[in-house]
Amino acid sequence: MAFDMPAAFRPDLPPAAPAWEEPPEYSFVGGHNCADTVPFAALAEASVNALTKHGRALATYNLGGSPLGYHPLREFVAESLGARAATPVDPEEVLITSGSLQALDLVNQAMLAPGDTVIIEQATYGGAVSRLAAVGARWEGVALDDDGIVPEHLEALLTDLRGRGVSPKYLYTIPTVQNPTGSVMPEARRHEILDICRRFDVPIFEDDCYADLVWDGSRPPTFRAIDRGAGQVVYCGSFSKTIAPALRVGFVVADRPVIQQLLALKTDAGTGAVEQLTLAEFAPPHFDAHVEKLTGVLQEKCSRMVTAVERSFGSDVTVVPPKGGIYVWLTFPEGVDTSSFVDAAAAEGIEFNPGRGWSADPEWGSRRLRLCFGHTDASAIDDGVAKLAEVYRSA
Amino acid sequence: MAFDMPAAFRPDLPPAAPAWEEPPEYSFVGGHNCADTVPFAALAEASVNALTKHGRALATYNLGGSPLGYHPLREFVAESLGARAATPVDPEEVLITSGSLQALDLVNQAMLAPGDTVIIEQATYGGAVSRLAAVGARWEGVALDDDGIVPEHLEALLTDLRGRGVSPKYLYTIPTVQNPTGSVMPEARRHEILDICRRFDVPIFEDDCYADLVWDGSRPPTFRAIDRGAGQVVYCGSFSKTIAPALRVGFVVADRPVIQQLLALKTDAGTGAVEQLTLAEFAPPHFDAHVEKLTGVLQEKCSRMVTAVERSFGSDVTVVPPKGGIYVWLTFPEGVDTSSFVDAAAAEGIEFNPGRGWSADPEWGSRRLRLCFGHTDASAIDDGVAKLAEVYRSA
Repeated sequence: MAFDMPAAFRPDLPPAAPAWEEPPEYSFVGGHNCADTVPFAALAEASVNALTKHGRALATYNLGGSPLGYHPLREFVAESLGARAATPVDPEEVLITSGSLQALDLVNQAMLAPGDTVIIEQATYGGAVSRLAAVGARWEGVALDDDGIVPEHLEALLTDLRGRGVSPKYLYTIPTVQNPTGSVMPEARRHEILDICRRFDVPIFEDDCYADLVWDGSRPPTFRAIDRGAGQVVYCGSFSKTIAPALRVGFVVADRPVIQQLLALKTDAGTGAVEQLTLAEFAPPHFDAHVEKLTGVLQEKCSRMVTAVERSFGSDVTVVPPKGGIYVWLTFPEGVDTSSFVDAAAAEGIEFNPGRGWSADPEWGSRRLRLCFGHTDASAIDDGVAKLAEVYRSA
Repeated sequence: MAFDMPAAFRPDLPPAAPAWEEPPEYSFVGGHNCADTVPFAALAEASVNALTKHGRALATYNLGGSPLGYHPLREFVAESLGARAATPVDPEEVLITSGSLQALDLVNQAMLAPGDTVIIEQATYGGAVSRLAAVGARWEGVALDDDGIVPEHLEALLTDLRGRGVSPKYLYTIPTVQNPTGSVMPEARRHEILDICRRFDVPIFEDDCYADLVWDGSRPPTFRAIDRGAGQVVYCGSFSKTIAPALRVGFVVADRPVIQQLLALKTDAGTGAVEQLTLAEFAPPHFDAHVEKLTGVLQEKCSRMVTAVERSFGSDVTVVPPKGGIYVWLTFPEGVDTSSFVDAAAAEGIEFNPGRGWSADPEWGSRRLRLCFGHTDASAIDDGVAKLAEVYRSA
C-alpha cells in the first residue's frame, strides 16, 4: 500500500503546478526576450574568461566574499544606476537576488502579515498580485493615467484608508515602463507621489525591472534617488529584461539595515556564482551598447504590434503606445470580458494575459488584456494579432 | 525626518544579518570545498561550449523548457543516481533547485505548520535545525550509532509520540556521509528504518548532498531506491559538494505529484540557466572522474585532520574517522561545553561549529563540535587544530 505524501502536505498550499506544455504558436505571454538579440557569444566569452580567472573561488560559498553577492557585480549595479538613472548607490546597499522575483518575495516576507494592506497600481504585474494573495495580504488599486499614478487619487485613497484605520504597508509601483501600460512617470510626478507617501508614512517599493528598456534611452531619476537618504524607498531591478530572463540575477537596493534584514531572510546561501561572474565580466564593457541595440529591436517590434492591433481590432480597442518594454495593454469596450475568449484563442494557438489577472480589481481589468511581443517574430505578431481579432469577433 | 523602514517590518523576523567579515586564518566551518580541486578549466570550457550552442535559449524563461529545470541536467541527475546509488529516477521526478537549501525550504513549506513535529538525527545539519526553528516546528532527536539511526530508538520514539497523539511530519535523515558524524548507513539498516517509518506512517526526507564523497566510492542504495514506488521518500541532493558550493544547483527527487506541488511553491521562475547549462555540459563526461579525484584529496585531508586531533587533543577527545565528506565530529568529556571557548578560539583566528547548533538537543551537543577540512590547507589543519587544543586546555 503506497504512502500518499501529498495528503501529508499542508492543506493551505496553492494548487500543484500543471504538467508543462510546449508554448503555442502565438505566445503573447511571459517576460521572454528577443532570441536574436541575446548577446550569447559575448556572454560565452565572458563566462570562459571569468571562470578561467576566478574559478578557484567557486570552492567557497559566495565566492569567498560577502553574501550580498559578487562585489564586482554589485559595483556594476551601483555604477549603472548612477549613470543611467541618476541614482547614487553604494555597493553595500545592493543585495544580488535570484531574479527580481526573489526580491519581491523577500520584501513581502519582511513586510507583510496576513490581512495587511498594500497599495498597487490599478493595472500591475500579475506576479505581484498573485504573491500578495499567496501571503494573505489585501490590496487597494490606485488609478493610473498616461504618466503613471494619479496623485489626487493616491491622496484620496490614503485619506480614506486612514479614516478606516488602515496603514498600508507599502506602495508597489513600476514607475518606468509600467507593467502592463508601458508608461514612464515624469520626474515631477515622482516628487508629488513621494511627497504624498511621506505625509502618510507609506514606504515605496519601486520595481524597475523594465526601466532600461525605454525607447529614448533616458530614464528619469528613480524614487530611490529622489528620496535619497530619507529611507522611504526599497528598490529592485533585474538583468532578466536587459540581458536574458533565463539568467536568474536581480537585485534589491535599499539602506543597509534593510539590506541586512532581507539578507537574513535569503536562505539559499547565495545566488548562482557562474551567472554573477559572467555578468560582472560581460556588463562593464557591453551593457550600454547591448541595451541600446536591444531597445531598437524591441521598439520596432512594438510598432509592429501597435500597428497590427490597430489594423486588426480597429476602433474596438484602445492601445496607448508604450514608451518602452515588451508588452502592450489593450482596452476593449465596456461589457467585453477578455477572459471569455481565452479558451477560443488557445484553440487557435494563441496565448495572452487577460486583464483580470493584471489588475488590482479584476472587474476593472476584465475588458483589458496584455500582449507581449519581445519573443515573437514580426510575422507571427501580424498573424497572431489578426487571428486573435477573429477570435474576439466570433466570441 | 527619515523614514524608519526596519520599524515597518514584521516583528517576528530573525535578527538582521551581521555585516560580513573576512573568514579568520583557521576557518573550520562551512561546506566549502578544496580550491585546488575545483575543475574550473573544464567548467570554463563547458560554459563556453554550452552558451555557444544553446545561448539563444536564454531569451526564454527556463530556456524555453519545463520549469522543472534544464532537461539534459535532469537526465544526468537521473542517470547518475541510477549508476551511483542504484536509484531508478525518471527526469520528470527531478526538480532542479537553487542548491539543496532551496529543496529544504520547499519541503518544509509544503509539509510544516507551526507546532508540527519532525524527527531529526541527534547530531544533524545545523541549517536544518535553524530552518525548523524558523518555521515554528518542534523536533525530536533520534539516537545515532556508527551505522546511523538506531532502529530500536526510532521505534521507541515513534511509539512514545503516538502515545502522546503526535504524528511526526517526516524523518529527516542524512544516511550517507551523515552530517556531522560522517557515518554511512548500511543497506540492511535502511530496510529496518524504512519498515519502521512505514508502520508509523512517517515519510522520510532523505538528504544525500554529501553522498558522492564516500571514500570507497560505493554508495548504498538510497531510501528512495529501497522504497521504490511506495511514495514514502522525498530525496534531495546537490552539486555543491561534488563540483563547487558557489554553484547554486541542487535537486529534489520525488513522485510526480509531489514534484508538481513543490514546483508550485518555487516562485523564482527557475534556477540559473548558465549554471544548469554549464553543469549539463560538464557532468556527463567529467563527473565520475572528478569525484574520484576529489574524494582522494578529501580523504587525505581527513586523515590529516583525524591525526592532528588525536595528536593535539589526546585522550580528551573521541573522533570516529568519517567514511567520507568534509568534516569530523569531536566528542569531549562530560562537563565540557564547546560553546564556552568559541570566543577564545576566535581570538586566535579559529572558527568551528560548536555542537549545540548541530544537535537536536543542545545539551547533548554541548560537549561536541564539528571541524571542516575541505577548504583548509594541510599545514593549516595541523596548526589550527594544535592551537584549538591549546585554547581548549586554557579554557
